[in-house]
Amino acid sequence: MGDKAIQDYYPEEFAHCFGCGPLNKEGWRVKSYWDGEASVCRFTPKPHYTGGSPGSVYGGLIASLIDCHAAATASVAKLQEDGFGLGERPLYRCVTASLKVDYLKPTPMGAVLELKGRAKEIKGRKVVVTVTLSAEGRVCAQGEVVMVQLRGSAQ
Amino acid sequence: MGDKAIQDYYPEEFAHCFGCGPLNKEGWRVKSYWDGEASVCRFTPKPHYTGGSPGSVYGGLIASLIDCHAAATASVAKLQEDGFGLGERPLYRCVTASLKVDYLKPTPMGAVLELKGRAKEIKGRKVVVTVTLSAEGRVCAQGEVVMVQLRGSAQ
Repeated sequence: MGDKAIQDYYPEEFAHCFGCGPLNKEGWRVKSYWDGEASVCRFTPKPHYTGGSPGSVYGGLIASLIDCHAAATASVAKLQEDGFGLGERPLYRCVTASLKVDYLKPTPMGAVLELKGRAKEIKGRKVVVTVTLSAEGRVCAQGEVVMVQLRGSAQ
Repeated sequence: MGDKAIQDYYPEEFAHCFGCGPLNKEGWRVKSYWDGEASVCRFTPKPHYTGGSPGSVYGGLIASLIDCHAAATASVAKLQEDGFGLGERPLYRCVTASLKVDYLKPTPMGAVLELKGRAKEIKGRKVVVTVTLSAEGRVCAQGEVVMVQLRGSAQ
């Protein structure tokens, strides 16, 4: 697993996402790491990111983390499919066509959230990514995200 | 359409959601209004809520707005199904079981986003809500959200 996050390879033009853009100074700057086959991200929500049910994490934050982590996973998986490793050429930028999140159980506040992502299918510019989000060793949410490589991001 | 937002009827215990809780001082305090059959919400993202593609709104924010607006829509639709109007008894609190968002086109920054929600199906504690999100008169995203009434919120 590299020391540098996947998002740190995004070209500057595509690095302003509120969730994961390294150049968005107001954002969360989510970081995902790639081990060659799958991706991992750890994130601890600040205390005000509570949801509608007391003691649980905001569902919108969960969806956002899954979305950003899936985008990173899709970008690197597509790059690898095309025969390149991270850093060997500018990283593609994928954006979301469709996001599905199942909230399996309340996600507790105060825990480190761990997301794991994997590309399930790559077809042309489309990459389908599955993500699990766990807290305290239990999967609390799972996502399936259809990502599309931005045309302008392939060089 | 009432002057008071749906979220302003949430019991205090369930009013701390980062997206729409009136008591979350750090949050967005999203406001949805009910006309008896459908709900509407208007929200203008601050300039730092950009997405991965330049000039477009962060997809995680779009998913979050759809989620909170669907929760409000489900709560009031279920209350109405049970024979009560807003304000006639404590409003139920619904939480998300499943969230599906289709991003149909980039959502432009700088525009007022308008969300419209409708309960498609109510069965026991489960309410299925459909939401459209428009900017400049065009639908940019649509969602289908399965909400569940929290047991502790019915009195």
